[in-house]
Amino acid sequence: MLGSSRSGLIAGAAILVGIAGLSYLLVRPAAPTTAAPPAAPAALVEFTSDGKLKQPVGYRQWIYVGTPLTPNDLNNGAAGFPEFHAVYIDPESFAHYKKTGEFRDGTVMIKELISVGSREAPSGKGYFMGDFRGLDVTIKDSKRFKDEPGFWAYFSFGHHYPLLTEAPKNPVSACNKCHEENAKTDWVFSRYYPVLRAAAPHSK
Amino acid sequence: MLGSSRSGLIAGAAILVGIAGLSYLLVRPAAPTTAAPPAAPAALVEFTSDGKLKQPVGYRQWIYVGTPLTPNDLNNGAAGFPEFHAVYIDPESFAHYKKTGEFRDGTVMIKELISVGSREAPSGKGYFMGDFRGLDVTIKDSKRFKDEPGFWAYFSFGHHYPLLTEAPKNPVSACNKCHEENAKTDWVFSRYYPVLRAAAPHSK
Repeated sequence: MLGSSRSGLIAGAAILVGIAGLSYLLVRPAAPTTAAPPAAPAALVEFTSDGKLKQPVGYRQWIYVGTPLTPNDLNNGAAGFPEFHAVYIDPESFAHYKKTGEFRDGTVMIKELISVGSREAPSGKGYFMGDFRGLDVTIKDSKRFKDEPGFWAYFSFGHHYPLLTEAPKNPVSACNKCHEENAKTDWVFSRYYPVLRAAAPHSK
Repeated sequence: MLGSSRSGLIAGAAILVGIAGLSYLLVRPAAPTTAAPPAAPAALVEFTSDGKLKQPVGYRQWIYVGTPLTPNDLNNGAAGFPEFHAVYIDPESFAHYKKTGEFRDGTVMIKELISVGSREAPSGKGYFMGDFRGLDVTIKDSKRFKDEPGFWAYFSFGHHYPLLTEAPKNPVSACNKCHEENAKTDWVFSRYYPVLRAAAPHSK
């Protein structure tokens, strides 16, 4: 009995070793137990404890969507934004927009203002970018900004350097009102942003 | 004998099931065995066997550097590039440029042409982007383009849609000559690209 039982166990063990070897080939080794668990992705933007937006970083590596230009010389010397506006959207919200044609909760858009640096270049007469002048940010967040029209809040870090390091939310009348009244698609002037239009043509 | 052997096998099988359950908890499931091994990073650009450049993809997710504008109405109706020029650099070459202020071998820059779509918007009078119109590409490669001045080759996929799917290298006289004579920094008009200037200020 014992002998038989042992031989049965040995047979079972042999199968086990075989399976263990096979499973070593079939499965990836687990991550080393000393490794820290994967960190959560860094937040796109951060706020101070009193609700100011900290100046975003890294947005020049985000998705560029377009550049409106309203120079002073075409606006009686008094354009609201006399600079080039280089406009970006965060990459994850862009991916969502491509799929759905909608701006997801958490979308961050950046308007970086760049002076008109020169009016003539080897390529001809026109408008050529000078230096960074300003930084405006808008964020859609139905929880944090539940009282803002469309859930979009607007922040300005200034239109000349040095910029603010933290910016309070602008009153609705300062930015949101114009976006609400004039932007066809969910508070964003998508019609001036060919990269957005091409990414989600059905949202035109 | 048979009974004993069977009970041994059953015991072995029980252990096996236990271990199998444990190993399911300890190791990640293997990737499906039909999956290909991890691919090498895709080449930034591809060429046909006769040296034409295939139309690049994904560049709207690259690093935007600036937007010159030379509209027809400021150039007697005959601008060389009457559109907005949205200019991008590939991300790895941008990272290298940030560190060194130099364009590495393999740098790819894109000039995407976008029509002037309208001249007035809620923000004022000016120039506002319409639709994509053209695509020009320049690549620095001291091996593939060893005979080009500065090792930069220039390709145009056309200035109206539909674009070419493959583009031959332009003759030096078509693009390189103007870049060589007029661009201060290594064939690139960096002075009109604030993102490049800010990334590597010492290279101004």
